[in-house]
Amino acid sequence: MNSYIHGLGAKAKAARKTLALLDTAQKNAALEQIAKSLLEPQNRELIKAENAKDLELAQTAGKSAAYIDRLTLNDSRIDAIVEGVRQVAALPDPVGVILKKYSNADGLKLTKKRVPLGTIGIIFESRPNVTVDAAVLCFKSGNTCILRGGSDSINSNKALANIMREALGGQLQDAVCLVEDTSREVAAQMMKMREYLDVLIPRGGEGLKQIVLENSTIPVIFAGGGICHVYVDGSADLDMAVSIVDNAKTQRPSVCNAIETVLVHESVAEEFRAKLEKHWSGKVEIIEGEYETEFLELKLSWKTVKSIDEAIEHINTYGTTHSECIVTKCSENAAKFQSQVDAAAVYVNASTRFTDGFVFGLGAEIGITTQKLHARGPMGLEELTTYKYLINGEGQIRG
Amino acid sequence: MNSYIHGLGAKAKAARKTLALLDTAQKNAALEQIAKSLLEPQNRELIKAENAKDLELAQTAGKSAAYIDRLTLNDSRIDAIVEGVRQVAALPDPVGVILKKYSNADGLKLTKKRVPLGTIGIIFESRPNVTVDAAVLCFKSGNTCILRGGSDSINSNKALANIMREALGGQLQDAVCLVEDTSREVAAQMMKMREYLDVLIPRGGEGLKQIVLENSTIPVIFAGGGICHVYVDGSADLDMAVSIVDNAKTQRPSVCNAIETVLVHESVAEEFRAKLEKHWSGKVEIIEGEYETEFLELKLSWKTVKSIDEAIEHINTYGTTHSECIVTKCSENAAKFQSQVDAAAVYVNASTRFTDGFVFGLGAEIGITTQKLHARGPMGLEELTTYKYLINGEGQIRG
Repeated sequence: MNSYIHGLGAKAKAARKTLALLDTAQKNAALEQIAKSLLEPQNRELIKAENAKDLELAQTAGKSAAYIDRLTLNDSRIDAIVEGVRQVAALPDPVGVILKKYSNADGLKLTKKRVPLGTIGIIFESRPNVTVDAAVLCFKSGNTCILRGGSDSINSNKALANIMREALGGQLQDAVCLVEDTSREVAAQMMKMREYLDVLIPRGGEGLKQIVLENSTIPVIFAGGGICHVYVDGSADLDMAVSIVDNAKTQRPSVCNAIETVLVHESVAEEFRAKLEKHWSGKVEIIEGEYETEFLELKLSWKTVKSIDEAIEHINTYGTTHSECIVTKCSENAAKFQSQVDAAAVYVNASTRFTDGFVFGLGAEIGITTQKLHARGPMGLEELTTYKYLINGEGQIRG
Repeated sequence: MNSYIHGLGAKAKAARKTLALLDTAQKNAALEQIAKSLLEPQNRELIKAENAKDLELAQTAGKSAAYIDRLTLNDSRIDAIVEGVRQVAALPDPVGVILKKYSNADGLKLTKKRVPLGTIGIIFESRPNVTVDAAVLCFKSGNTCILRGGSDSINSNKALANIMREALGGQLQDAVCLVEDTSREVAAQMMKMREYLDVLIPRGGEGLKQIVLENSTIPVIFAGGGICHVYVDGSADLDMAVSIVDNAKTQRPSVCNAIETVLVHESVAEEFRAKLEKHWSGKVEIIEGEYETEFLELKLSWKTVKSIDEAIEHINTYGTTHSECIVTKCSENAAKFQSQVDAAAVYVNASTRFTDGFVFGLGAEIGITTQKLHARGPMGLEELTTYKYLINGEGQIRG
């Protein structure tokens, strides 16, 4: 048992009580206090100075330009972080909502009420903005949190966490706890702290997620990778299909709701291929096979299929149940595809790139889960809550 | 990789497709077919004969009378199992319900629809009735299942599973799969089959649940033990308090919603103790301490507290977030207790023994979870489902 991380667990658990005393206006005021603190000139300079330390280490270690970019905090990114805090403050409070109210045969009055989960553990990699994004989503939904970022962004994370903690002040500061010891041993201990953590959310690459999955005894909300598909049906508007495939593949190829494979009905395969190649003129490499690979780059797998059934079968075999799309004019095929494809988001005639908490109207997003338990697809504030039953009687006992 | 259990996983996954084609009436007809088959004289004789083999082995092994009783299937128990199947058939179908339907700023039409989880793994111990109870709840909620009972009830479980599978017939029979190889190795492999199982529900003692928790990479719905409390407030009706404490402790001491500890405000401690001892006249042993023990017998822990805050603090420290109760005439204290105690069910002036899927109006129950993710408290048919987003567009792409 590691006393450092268990001490942090106990603090985060104790802070639930202080946080629970705040009403919506008080929580929003605390979030505005965080926003203001992040904007204070000396704090902005501190963030950039600490971030510079992380950047220097990353450069010395010869990290890639994309990696350095993800790690960088400059003025516009700090402004974006603050904007995010204020957006969360403006969202409706999910806590305290009555989900159901009824009496039963025993004359008991039951109320099913939405409450925070408790304490949420977030394990993430190099993006320091997650420190603030995750903390404020947890805070608004009434949860305290323990944040464990990577060692490569520890200086930036510390600066951001300290500014938030000071803004919260007093006992409330432990609503946001940062794991400053970024050793693997401490992370491993954290994944077993069922007495302090109600859920663990890993945010990062597949390697990190597999480690959490294999080692955590705490319930995990798992955002699997995105092997997503567009199926171009025999009846598809092929110009629309080109537009959707282009958007889903090229608008941002590195994200989970971008597609990896296009499945095309044999009756339109030749014509569609010609249109697509003309549109891209070499911009995207089209290959056959490698259906189990998430390319995350300008590479697309092609498969010609004999039927919609073959397409559905392929998707249910190789897909990661994230986002899937059919382009079709046939309403029967559309309905069949939406019913039989097993995925969080199943599209008819629209790009898979729309799978996102903001787009779906959740207001914000802590991640997209490909698991089926608790929440599926984009997760917003409501998805960071649970419920409890309040039962009021007049002395009833069970017969 | 164990080919036996992976083969079973593939079969259960494939059967989802056949099951998904059935509408509510067809599912109910299949359940009635199961009920009828279980009632056929030759099947009833088969069940009893196979159960006799298990009972003989258990007797030879010197198992306790309580153990033998849990293992026994006689005519009245078979009747009760069949009654349970028919009750589940009569419940509303949770699948296909529209949870939300809306359009977003992009002109996309979104429908959030309730769907089955997929395939559910149940790992249970000596009670053979779980084979049928769990299978029919999974079936009605559109899920296929893989049941892994203990080796001590394997003959009974095989008989019950085979009767159900024959009643379902054809490809649908794999909607109910029984693990006939009850070795630990196979169970360990089953806990890692994320490609085939969407959730794992352990039903049995703490030892079994800990093994599942430590080893499963599949999301687990965990029904922790029940260390439940009654707090007798200074303003309590003491006769009501005696009645509730008596019911919660003695009506069925071996179950999870029975209480282990009574917390009593110091202003009424002496008077309440006298009343309680008079009522029980030695029937229940009252001790001080051992607050972390789930006695499951006629033994009760006593603690005198200085305030409601001390009671809440004690419960949030030693409780298992299952069922907690305050007896009070003070509405402020009632509200404070319900708000601050972290548990699935928080009672005012009623016995904790009411925490149950039937009592709460869920129609049936596959278990009571003390986790906070997905479902909390009693789990019925709805709690065996998830949702998917269906998105309909007219060619929209993301800008």
